[in-house]
Amino acid sequence: MERDLYAAFSPLDHRYYLANQKLFDSLAEYLSENGLIKAQLRVEAAVTKGLAKREICPAAVADEVEKACRAVSPSEVYEEEATTRHNIRALVNCIQRRVSPEARPFVHFSVTSMDIVDSANALRFMEATNKVLLPLCLEFLETLISLARREKATLQMGRTHGQHAVPVTFGFAVAEYVSRFGQRVEKIKAAANNLRGKIAGAVGAYNALALFLPDPEVFAEEVLAELGLKPSPSATQIVEPEYFTDYFHALISTFGVLANLADDFRNLQRTELAEIGEEFAPGQVGSSTMPHKRNPWNFEHVKSMWKAIVPRMFTVYLDQVSEHQRDLTNSASSRFNPEIVVALAAAVARLNRVLKRLVVHEEQMRKNFMLTQESVIAEPLYILLAFHGHPDAHEAVRKMTLRAEAKGISLRQLLNQKEEVAELTAYLDKFSPAQWAVLNHPDQYLGIAVRKTELLCAEGERILRSMRGSTPAE
Amino acid sequence: MERDLYAAFSPLDHRYYLANQKLFDSLAEYLSENGLIKAQLRVEAAVTKGLAKREICPAAVADEVEKACRAVSPSEVYEEEATTRHNIRALVNCIQRRVSPEARPFVHFSVTSMDIVDSANALRFMEATNKVLLPLCLEFLETLISLARREKATLQMGRTHGQHAVPVTFGFAVAEYVSRFGQRVEKIKAAANNLRGKIAGAVGAYNALALFLPDPEVFAEEVLAELGLKPSPSATQIVEPEYFTDYFHALISTFGVLANLADDFRNLQRTELAEIGEEFAPGQVGSSTMPHKRNPWNFEHVKSMWKAIVPRMFTVYLDQVSEHQRDLTNSASSRFNPEIVVALAAAVARLNRVLKRLVVHEEQMRKNFMLTQESVIAEPLYILLAFHGHPDAHEAVRKMTLRAEAKGISLRQLLNQKEEVAELTAYLDKFSPAQWAVLNHPDQYLGIAVRKTELLCAEGERILRSMRGSTPAE
Amino acid sequence: MERDLYAAFSPLDHRYYLANQKLFDSLAEYLSENGLIKAQLRVEAAVTKGLAKREICPAAVADEVEKACRAVSPSEVYEEEATTRHNIRALVNCIQRRVSPEARPFVHFSVTSMDIVDSANALRFMEATNKVLLPLCLEFLETLISLARREKATLQMGRTHGQHAVPVTFGFAVAEYVSRFGQRVEKIKAAANNLRGKIAGAVGAYNALALFLPDPEVFAEEVLAELGLKPSPSATQIVEPEYFTDYFHALISTFGVLANLADDFRNLQRTELAEIGEEFAPGQVGSSTMPHKRNPWNFEHVKSMWKAIVPRMFTVYLDQVSEHQRDLTNSASSRFNPEIVVALAAAVARLNRVLKRLVVHEEQMRKNFMLTQESVIAEPLYILLAFHGHPDAHEAVRKMTLRAEAKGISLRQLLNQKEEVAELTAYLDKFSPAQWAVLNHPDQYLGIAVRKTELLCAEGERILRSMRGSTPAE
Amino acid sequence: MERDLYAAFSPLDHRYYLANQKLFDSLAEYLSENGLIKAQLRVEAAVTKGLAKREICPAAVADEVEKACRAVSPSEVYEEEATTRHNIRALVNCIQRRVSPEARPFVHFSVTSMDIVDSANALRFMEATNKVLLPLCLEFLETLISLARREKATLQMGRTHGQHAVPVTFGFAVAEYVSRFGQRVEKIKAAANNLRGKIAGAVGAYNALALFLPDPEVFAEEVLAELGLKPSPSATQIVEPEYFTDYFHALISTFGVLANLADDFRNLQRTELAEIGEEFAPGQVGSSTMPHKRNPWNFEHVKSMWKAIVPRMFTVYLDQVSEHQRDLTNSASSRFNPEIVVALAAAVARLNRVLKRLVVHEEQMRKNFMLTQESVIAEPLYILLAFHGHPDAHEAVRKMTLRAEAKGISLRQLLNQKEEVAELTAYLDKFSPAQWAVLNHPDQYLGIAVRKTELLCAEGERILRSMRGSTPAE
Repeated sequence: MERDLYAAFSPLDHRYYLANQKLFDSLAEYLSENGLIKAQLRVEAAVTKGLAKREICPAAVADEVEKACRAVSPSEVYEEEATTRHNIRALVNCIQRRVSPEARPFVHFSVTSMDIVDSANALRFMEATNKVLLPLCLEFLETLISLARREKATLQMGRTHGQHAVPVTFGFAVAEYVSRFGQRVEKIKAAANNLRGKIAGAVGAYNALALFLPDPEVFAEEVLAELGLKPSPSATQIVEPEYFTDYFHALISTFGVLANLADDFRNLQRTELAEIGEEFAPGQVGSSTMPHKRNPWNFEHVKSMWKAIVPRMFTVYLDQVSEHQRDLTNSASSRFNPEIVVALAAAVARLNRVLKRLVVHEEQMRKNFMLTQESVIAEPLYILLAFHGHPDAHEAVRKMTLRAEAKGISLRQLLNQKEEVAELTAYLDKFSPAQWAVLNHPDQYLGIAVRKTELLCAEGERILRSMRGSTPAE
Repeated sequence: MERDLYAAFSPLDHRYYLANQKLFDSLAEYLSENGLIKAQLRVEAAVTKGLAKREICPAAVADEVEKACRAVSPSEVYEEEATTRHNIRALVNCIQRRVSPEARPFVHFSVTSMDIVDSANALRFMEATNKVLLPLCLEFLETLISLARREKATLQMGRTHGQHAVPVTFGFAVAEYVSRFGQRVEKIKAAANNLRGKIAGAVGAYNALALFLPDPEVFAEEVLAELGLKPSPSATQIVEPEYFTDYFHALISTFGVLANLADDFRNLQRTELAEIGEEFAPGQVGSSTMPHKRNPWNFEHVKSMWKAIVPRMFTVYLDQVSEHQRDLTNSASSRFNPEIVVALAAAVARLNRVLKRLVVHEEQMRKNFMLTQESVIAEPLYILLAFHGHPDAHEAVRKMTLRAEAKGISLRQLLNQKEEVAELTAYLDKFSPAQWAVLNHPDQYLGIAVRKTELLCAEGERILRSMRGSTPAE
Repeated sequence: MERDLYAAFSPLDHRYYLANQKLFDSLAEYLSENGLIKAQLRVEAAVTKGLAKREICPAAVADEVEKACRAVSPSEVYEEEATTRHNIRALVNCIQRRVSPEARPFVHFSVTSMDIVDSANALRFMEATNKVLLPLCLEFLETLISLARREKATLQMGRTHGQHAVPVTFGFAVAEYVSRFGQRVEKIKAAANNLRGKIAGAVGAYNALALFLPDPEVFAEEVLAELGLKPSPSATQIVEPEYFTDYFHALISTFGVLANLADDFRNLQRTELAEIGEEFAPGQVGSSTMPHKRNPWNFEHVKSMWKAIVPRMFTVYLDQVSEHQRDLTNSASSRFNPEIVVALAAAVARLNRVLKRLVVHEEQMRKNFMLTQESVIAEPLYILLAFHGHPDAHEAVRKMTLRAEAKGISLRQLLNQKEEVAELTAYLDKFSPAQWAVLNHPDQYLGIAVRKTELLCAEGERILRSMRGSTPAE
Repeated sequence: MERDLYAAFSPLDHRYYLANQKLFDSLAEYLSENGLIKAQLRVEAAVTKGLAKREICPAAVADEVEKACRAVSPSEVYEEEATTRHNIRALVNCIQRRVSPEARPFVHFSVTSMDIVDSANALRFMEATNKVLLPLCLEFLETLISLARREKATLQMGRTHGQHAVPVTFGFAVAEYVSRFGQRVEKIKAAANNLRGKIAGAVGAYNALALFLPDPEVFAEEVLAELGLKPSPSATQIVEPEYFTDYFHALISTFGVLANLADDFRNLQRTELAEIGEEFAPGQVGSSTMPHKRNPWNFEHVKSMWKAIVPRMFTVYLDQVSEHQRDLTNSASSRFNPEIVVALAAAVARLNRVLKRLVVHEEQMRKNFMLTQESVIAEPLYILLAFHGHPDAHEAVRKMTLRAEAKGISLRQLLNQKEEVAELTAYLDKFSPAQWAVLNHPDQYLGIAVRKTELLCAEGERILRSMRGSTPAE
């Protein structure tokens, strides 16, 4: 059924769909209503195949059903639902209509709607993750690693509270995201591949299946294995909800890492900081009335999407609660969950695109550093004094700072005026040349920033290798 | 641009759209991407019209622009945006392309993108509310009033903590929702009609308009009045966010009332209570494996939608924060807000449909009441004892209850065994016949339930009349 | 009962209590467990007083009860609850113990626990708001007005997306908060003074009271009026929840305005911007290892508190749902609600303190403005060109900007190079001297920033006057 | 510092503290302000000890510092903070004051405040979890296992949508929680023991430590190992936030399982269901006006606490974002996090207490089952028909159900009227005796409920054993 795209309500179904059709189409394979119904049909086919393996129906019946399942279309199911007013009954009717009378009884045989619905959801979210989201995440991880490596020695002022602190390198700052994002990606993979199905009947006790099978729980395992799934350890009418709770937590906490990165990068792009920039396409308009502007709109966009998506987790938490053997109050609500994956994938793709062509203004980074380089040495100075035995080094340096301020000179200058630091001479004389070097060249006060960047990138690459080895190829 | 409906991600764009196409289409007039762009075009037209009134451009230019604004289509704007990468610039280009060279400069003249975006949003949410949501709410309010009136004398056990308490009537219980929902509807109306626009330029100081006009803030009032809007008292690049915060709070707190009603009604439909039921359509399937079931699925659905929507309020609260004269981090996030209105409207429509044909099982209500009618009198008994001077009536009745329990008789029976209540005779003798009547007929212990139902319905009708008088007709 | 303060879990009960004991103590009068029990005792006293007025008990009984209610202590109630395991029963026992046998029956006579609990909550939140929160808000509003007025002409670069846009004044930016905060304060007042009580019995139908009174709903009005409250239009066992929903929405949306202000101000304090600063107390340590730092920690603190408090609204929304005539699932949850008021009050007090001694670095504001003043004129230039008839002024200026950038000169310089702007001569010649002045002095491109500041401050003062006139004095 | 307990705001600091002082006191060891400061002192001691191991200071200095750290009290630190206005500086001053001048420089030597704060938080949450929360969870898991085992064969009607479905056993329903809760407990343990510390300095690059040490990251490992912690893979001024995000997710998703259980159990306690009950203490008052009531208030309480706590996760997600090398906006907010642990522990303890003495009304369960036992067979009947070759069994049974309803007889009766089921004879004749047994004894239609209960309990016991073996004893 065709519909005017601009008549849609969700921005993921119009504006953001148009912004990245290729990606959205590949996600729609799994996460649209089409994707849902296709996955449900696959589960129905697997059930009949399982019955055939157990010789409850002939193998030919299973083949017939599988073929029918491939042929049924979502429109057909919806039309049927107009009569049945029950979506899975409609689905079953559509399959049955396409098979021989002998095969009909073995469609949806002794299973309950939620066996199909829950297993199909596990299946499609697992596959959307493995086939679309994770490969995208790995690409982005790779981009982050490249950027961190490239900029590993680029001096940047470290900032805490928005105030200059002591220096880092820009690559080191990026490597933080290599580490955080890399670990999240592993979480996503683990959670997605731990989603569970069920073939346990109306209340989870295999009431129907046990009429024929001595080991219905093994049958459930067999059917689900066919789809690459494992069964929920226990079930009511539905799978234990926590597998999805963990999965969405993995996604939403990953989005938080992206939001942090986006926030950092849009702040670094402030006019006064101007340390980085997004490449601007020719013809692109920054602002309709201020044509000179270069807005960090992609970073703003990602943060904004995060704001839209993070509260969705509450729906997921509320959906942990379902009365007795199940109530339906998690049905409509969970139908919005695919949007969480879509929004996250779109954000990853966007950041990947922008970071691949990120412009780093190294000169401006250094210029910003120069603003306060004179006071950077307060920290190493205080530590060196303490190291060499000063009993109250922190207070001594705090006072020196105030004195320098009062005199309108820098702490470094003060330090080089012998009469001003007379009472410190005993300690200063013990400083090694290397230690003096840091005091005289604050841009060398970098700790192990460069080495640490390398270490974090190496770990990122280990993740890349291990996951690329194991992620099912598209 | 056409797209397969089943390729959409949001259930509001496939499944629930199909469930109520008429309603969704009427909302799409305002709340889809089409609706957004149409509203923006109306704001652009109003701006030029305002300029013409001030004789900054000829009246003919304003007419030309207005005509162009009516002609531009969303697809066109999106195609243009592929080049400009700025949606309002694209919109402006599309208008300009359709007008004479003389008119062109007066398209989007001295306004900023957000003047258009924010005013258009206020406009479309106000209109969607006045023209679709509120009339629907009033219909539902009417349904609630009818139901409450019809059932005003239908005895029902009052329940607290899921336990039987003292009796009410079913109509009285419904009247509670007449009151709560009626007041919420008034809140929605007030908040929707208090949404504000702005024509105050890039940073809210009317920098551009003040180049020509001594009173740009009056000009802004004139332009917005054309659209039925008032200006935000202050503005940065954007309207004060709290107008929308209040509006969405009104919607979401209304949804909470529906969720409460839905919860009550689905519980009353429990097999063991069975006090009400949804009418079942012939052919409708209750459950694919338990064909005898009558699930309260519409009530479950409404509660579930509420679970999906209530967390959206957090995005709205987060969107109150925009740095300095504005950052863009409220852009993508607020694009999801139309879904709040759509989901609420769909829930109201659904409940209205179901409550119009609600089946009330009066006999079952009475049967349930009978389960504990004997102990209902504990409360009036204790109060009457106290009223007639017993110094510790509560304790006395608590002990009687335990004694009755121990003897396996009812409190009422105990009360009629003179020897059992010998120590109470002094008080019991003072009871009036009317007071004894309540003790002997617990179903008369109804307080003012019937009268109160009438009062609440009358107030509901007052709201109906006052709002129907004033809501702009469709 | 005394307890080690540092053994408390909530930071509002240790760290932040210590940070502002005076304020917290004044709030504790209403919002601590003491405050709750005191309010409940006042409701009990009012009930008996109401009975006496109706001559159901002697006036002396009401006096006795009122006196007892003043004497009962929270510890006493808690000790009693250890036996009764019911808090209101315990409260009643404590009162009864202190009155004569004749008075005892008229304590808590024919009311239900929730009549007391709900009315007491309305009472204490109303009073905490009127007596502590609102006066504090008005003080802060006054501070904001003073700051806006003082800085109304202080040039500051307007920023959108963190990028320089066109100029405003700092006072104008502050006036935005005068407007937003002022309106929120009015919302808080309205919502707090609209909190409702109830004396409607176990299921809201006045079942018990109607045993004696023909007009129990009038009796309820009388009792509540004694406390300055109005009754809920309808009630189950509890007051309609939406009065509190609206109240907490007012508080939390007010907190959003503070969070926005805090975010702006901490960003303006960034090392590279350095436009404002918090005054530092002598001896105060900025950072334990970087003694030179001046962190905007109060602004950070306020934003952080907002992050802790805003999700509490979710609990409030969930608490709208209570099954049938009530379930208890809103009891524990709503006991955390006082923290919302306390956290907001603390944030207002903190911002008030900091803004009273805010250091504004006017020179630095101008210096920052100078960074991009050359490109500020792009906007007026484009508008003036359009005004004087250029058919595509926006595009023309965009290209000029790129050309200037390529040449390494400013847009203003380019504008003054006749050969560069030859094709624009026809339009430029029409510019008035005043219009040229703006192009040559970008710091005059301020629109009506100064006047608007005055207008917003005048409106703020109107609110101050009107609310101070009416807010009950402390 | 002592304070009136009833002056506290958080119910966890008054009402709920009093409800379980023993538990709360044991948690306060770690999670109160005392617990925080103690943990910080332990980190300071470990730092100096690490320095001594590296021979940067004498071993005697480390001993001196450790002793001082044991002696410092929270009050002392707070008093000092009144001067320094910096909490860690205050802490350091308090330690330094108690050690010799030679030791002083090696207190807090070359570390930053957040090294102490973050490591201390990891430490105390880990310990509170291992020493208090987990042992409590295991006790509750044990209680659940006992209950499930005891009731494994107790017939109960399975309910979906609040409607009768097909039977389970009560033990089976409980076993679902054994499974879900057991797995969550494993999640909590893993997440708590994966919390990370840091000793990486002001911006995470070990700037200060690297002045002396070639391998400061190894030094960090050494110091943290002393406390049983591992370092964060990367750090800015703070530990990667996701370790805490995962930890709180584990807690909050565990709370969701408890909320589900509480909801089920309070519903089973409804007057009309009455399948279970909480044991009532003698003297306990159910309701102040309805003394006969037996409210499921503990289950209501747990659900209510969950409603208060689940939104806290939003704060945790927001706290993932910290600008650049850190801003302070996660400071105040994260100070509320201990309440999450406390509330969860209190809920576990409460449910454990109530479930240990849960009263199960087996007779009432069977009585409820009888209400619809006749229609239960619809499902097995339809499946058996299909199994034996009926091409449209579902529809056939649906029609039989309607026919039985119309005739006012049960489906089972209908099934036994040969003329009514004439068209089914061919299939019915194939039914095995065992299959007929289920149709004639619907209470045997239990699937593998009993066996599955045993399996889930065995898995629960495996968790118990494995965790009790490894959880550090108290």
